[in-house]
Amino acid sequence: MKVTKDGELNMKYVITIGREYGSGGRFIGRLVAEKLGIPFYDNELLIEAAKESGLSPSIFESYDEKQDGFLGGGLGMYSYDMTLSQKVFLAQFDTIKKITEEKSCVIVGRCADYVLKENPNVVNVFICAPMEDKIKRAIEYYGIKPEKAASYIVKKDKKRKGYYNFYTDMDWGKASNYDLCINSRIGIEGCVDTIVDYTKRRFHLE
Amino acid sequence: MKVTKDGELNMKYVITIGREYGSGGRFIGRLVAEKLGIPFYDNELLIEAAKESGLSPSIFESYDEKQDGFLGGGLGMYSYDMTLSQKVFLAQFDTIKKITEEKSCVIVGRCADYVLKENPNVVNVFICAPMEDKIKRAIEYYGIKPEKAASYIVKKDKKRKGYYNFYTDMDWGKASNYDLCINSRIGIEGCVDTIVDYTKRRFHLE
Repeated sequence: MKVTKDGELNMKYVITIGREYGSGGRFIGRLVAEKLGIPFYDNELLIEAAKESGLSPSIFESYDEKQDGFLGGGLGMYSYDMTLSQKVFLAQFDTIKKITEEKSCVIVGRCADYVLKENPNVVNVFICAPMEDKIKRAIEYYGIKPEKAASYIVKKDKKRKGYYNFYTDMDWGKASNYDLCINSRIGIEGCVDTIVDYTKRRFHLE
Repeated sequence: MKVTKDGELNMKYVITIGREYGSGGRFIGRLVAEKLGIPFYDNELLIEAAKESGLSPSIFESYDEKQDGFLGGGLGMYSYDMTLSQKVFLAQFDTIKKITEEKSCVIVGRCADYVLKENPNVVNVFICAPMEDKIKRAIEYYGIKPEKAASYIVKKDKKRKGYYNFYTDMDWGKASNYDLCINSRIGIEGCVDTIVDYTKRRFHLE
């Protein structure tokens, strides 16, 4: 890795993390960022996008990773035809581009892998987990009722898949879309270490 | 990891490797086995299965990972209804079970992940690669004509997916079926090191 005269790393790299609901993917992303000493984005990114685009942050919250139902896919239409969620997607798209030009970072969700697909310095990660682990996390961390947890998880993942497949030309959760997919049954720490090791190896860090 | 009185490791572990055609998965499996000092199986396994079952090795070669077309799936039928490829699958099934009870090893293909799904000491790996890399390998290592390589690869992977999905209740190449999926664009060595590190971490080796 090249280092500039003042000791700053001059290569920016990005780790994107797609994840099943309840897999621990967001938490893993935060720990990876901490270990590598780089910023972490998920909701923060949305808020930044809101500021840049002039849309209200509250709109972003309600439209976060939802697609409103209309026929056809992607963004191949004029601005006046765009739904609010498409505008949100575009604002995030621009923000992800801008941030990753300025600094190395970890981004969770938001189709960041698709947004950055022309950037060679990206590691695209997907985190999955056994259903019993996801149910446990949904109950423990998100307060979902035990009897509703399984169907809630399936619904959430269906939405994530729908959002991803709608805005990208790729297939959510399919191994060949990513650089690295890890099942978090090895434990959070095992996932974090595997991603950090992989990233260091890939970009010849340290 | 527990060690017996005579210093032998008393836990047997298995690494199964599913892979896209031309991804380098088989070669990666061989190197992982070498690095961990455990046996490697792919065609060898088939031959061993042939010896055990009394079927001729030449039959195994022609039926290797092919499924002959008949309606329905799986193995829920009587022996006299079985096609030859189903008999081959069953012979391999038994051999995989037997080998993995006796020793730690790496097994490439053969739905080994499905065969061993009740075994807790298994790491299921899937190797994929960008199409351009797979084309290069198909031409270089398998002598496929450049103009036919892309369609040949698609056909081969369709067969692998068909074989896998036919005999198992899982989905070939879907991240959530595996412990670890790696895109070999990081390079063969990077994949080998990532799998070896993961395995050591998982089973507390060394």
